[in-house]
Amino acid sequence: MKSSLLKVYESTQKRELPKHELEFGRTFTDHMFVMDFSESEGWHDAKIVPYEPLSIDPAAMVFHYGQSVFEGLKAYLSPQGEPLLFRPEKNIARLNKSNERLCIPAIDEEFLLDALKELIQIDQNWIPSANGTSLYIRPFIISTEPFLGVALSTQYKLIIILSPVGAYYKEGINPVKIAVENEYVRAVRGGTGEAKTGGNYASSLKAQEQAANGGYAQVLWLDGVEKKYIEEVGSMNVFFKIKDEVVTPELNGSILNGVTRDSVIQLLEYWGVNVIERKVTIEEIYEEYKKGNIDEVFGSGTATVISPVGQLDWNNYQMVFNNGETGNLVQKVYETLTGIQYGRLEDPFNWIEQVNVRRRVNKVG
Amino acid sequence: MKSSLLKVYESTQKRELPKHELEFGRTFTDHMFVMDFSESEGWHDAKIVPYEPLSIDPAAMVFHYGQSVFEGLKAYLSPQGEPLLFRPEKNIARLNKSNERLCIPAIDEEFLLDALKELIQIDQNWIPSANGTSLYIRPFIISTEPFLGVALSTQYKLIIILSPVGAYYKEGINPVKIAVENEYVRAVRGGTGEAKTGGNYASSLKAQEQAANGGYAQVLWLDGVEKKYIEEVGSMNVFFKIKDEVVTPELNGSILNGVTRDSVIQLLEYWGVNVIERKVTIEEIYEEYKKGNIDEVFGSGTATVISPVGQLDWNNYQMVFNNGETGNLVQKVYETLTGIQYGRLEDPFNWIEQVNVRRRVNKVG
Ligand SMILES: Cc1ncc(COP(=O)(O)O)c(C=O)c1O
Ligand SMILES: Cc1ncc(COP(=O)(O)O)c(C=O)c1O
Repeated sequence: MKSSLLKVYESTQKRELPKHELEFGRTFTDHMFVMDFSESEGWHDAKIVPYEPLSIDPAAMVFHYGQSVFEGLKAYLSPQGEPLLFRPEKNIARLNKSNERLCIPAIDEEFLLDALKELIQIDQNWIPSANGTSLYIRPFIISTEPFLGVALSTQYKLIIILSPVGAYYKEGINPVKIAVENEYVRAVRGGTGEAKTGGNYASSLKAQEQAANGGYAQVLWLDGVEKKYIEEVGSMNVFFKIKDEVVTPELNGSILNGVTRDSVIQLLEYWGVNVIERKVTIEEIYEEYKKGNIDEVFGSGTATVISPVGQLDWNNYQMVFNNGETGNLVQKVYETLTGIQYGRLEDPFNWIEQVNVRRRVNKVG
Repeated sequence: MKSSLLKVYESTQKRELPKHELEFGRTFTDHMFVMDFSESEGWHDAKIVPYEPLSIDPAAMVFHYGQSVFEGLKAYLSPQGEPLLFRPEKNIARLNKSNERLCIPAIDEEFLLDALKELIQIDQNWIPSANGTSLYIRPFIISTEPFLGVALSTQYKLIIILSPVGAYYKEGINPVKIAVENEYVRAVRGGTGEAKTGGNYASSLKAQEQAANGGYAQVLWLDGVEKKYIEEVGSMNVFFKIKDEVVTPELNGSILNGVTRDSVIQLLEYWGVNVIERKVTIEEIYEEYKKGNIDEVFGSGTATVISPVGQLDWNNYQMVFNNGETGNLVQKVYETLTGIQYGRLEDPFNWIEQVNVRRRVNKVG
């Protein structure tokens, strides 16, 4: 599929850019990207159109059998006012990995990256410029065949929508309080945990609701089999600084392979910090905590980038890390990552991708 | 919520009833039921409208985080041409159980049953009359708030659509070939297995695809923790006749509480058969099989009612039951259940519910 096949239908009614403080994920831009899949044509009819409601048959399989995947990444405005993407090829590759697990036909990764850039260019003035703000990018695929039967859909829609978002933390980063979840399970070996698919998130809501009622920001998920290995924290990967090492749960098929996680690992190694990906039990964390060996714990994910854990409650035990304050390493990781993302710092890893590259496009209408 | 609040907008263009042989889940009737939920109004604006595409924001949470539930039941035409429902209150109660797990606001069960009956009455001529055919009823709830964040939606839509369906087996029931699934997991303790929610089905597609490629009709699911306890077969509950007893996996939180399962248990007990709900390992089944103690195995579910298992493959072992033919007990259960469902046999359990009861309705338009 060639980029030249992308059709652009520009919106005639540009909406007003938001003036208020931006809440995460509530405001959307003027345009969206849409591409269809059918058995006879494969992925086809790629187009950028005005943001508008979808018209979908009530029997569309996504409503019933949840065959869907999504991604989440961001565009940042550089000091020069240029839009930058952070490792977008990783998200697009992960989309295809999710597709594989969910039996959704693979997409052409190069084409999708081009289409994504085109969409961002068209809605470029929607990228907010205030400190810590960015443009959240949400590609997703849904099964649209109108059929009531548990089977692979033969029709899909890939859509990309854009949402200008505020800083997750208004005054820099703030440590959060987390509860270890002992009852509910987010994902399990042999399940869909490694894929970004709706079911994992639907399944997490109940635990999250209970945690919120108990005054916690998120839950820490244990593995579904033995209920002792640490997997993730909320919708983030998790890191523990134990003495001079940083430990993070190894990718085991039920943990999401986070782009931020990978970037944190590379960054720490670049600094000469020993990072170990392995199995970690909650018991071990508690034992090390009691010995005074853990002073920094944090989550990593696109939305917050880095989120320090100030307190972790496990059954009747309360673990407070670094007096509930943001530690030095966490702070440094956060500032370096965001510095690279916004083009303020050097990018020794070649993570940053420019958006404004001229390409051939059929402008229609 | 009163039934009198149900508004009916009748379709002016009645579509043609299908003349061809009915495929399962592909044809839909003239009308559908729709009801909305908002935080301020609760469930409101219940109406029956012409069947039509939904207009849904691309940011609607169901597309991203899979917060959705559904049900499946059938209306049958009696010899007198009267539509009958089979234990519909069980499905509606289960919908609310699914709602609870998925943090979706509960619905008024009595009201929904009334609305369901009203919808069936309006599209009554869509209930097919050929042998073994019926009207499949699909209530489902989707989260519709346009918001990109893992959280509880504050807006939902409950919809009921109807699909005239053919006999699952053209010449009575036919034994199927099943493979035990060792790698993929459908659901796990602490997960959403007991709820009828899209994620469970999305997660099952990969295993089902592999099984189909291997010439199998379905997979037999093992528990996600120890991978040795039998849970379900495809989208059905499963029964094993071991010597003079019938054994079925006990409800453990990750198995769906099937209406057909419950009916089979009651029916067998009514006949004086010893039915035991307990943990069953695949190992035990194989051992009993080798001793010649298992001659009938079958799945139960609304779509097929009863589906005999002719062959079960576990690793390199092949188990063939009753020479791959439908056994006497399976046949008798199938005939009795369908006999009751179609109003041909006496209903000692009070399972059948009439549809045509006069109620007050605001006819609009
Ligand atoms: C379950 C889960 N884990 C981890 C992450 C972090 O991944 P990333 O760093 O790619 O945003 C996310 C968010 O994308 C997630 O949804
Ligand atoms: C996973 C699963 N198990 C079992 C069943 C059987 O349940 P019921 O007899 O209520 O149709 C179904 C179908 O509804 C199902 O989806």
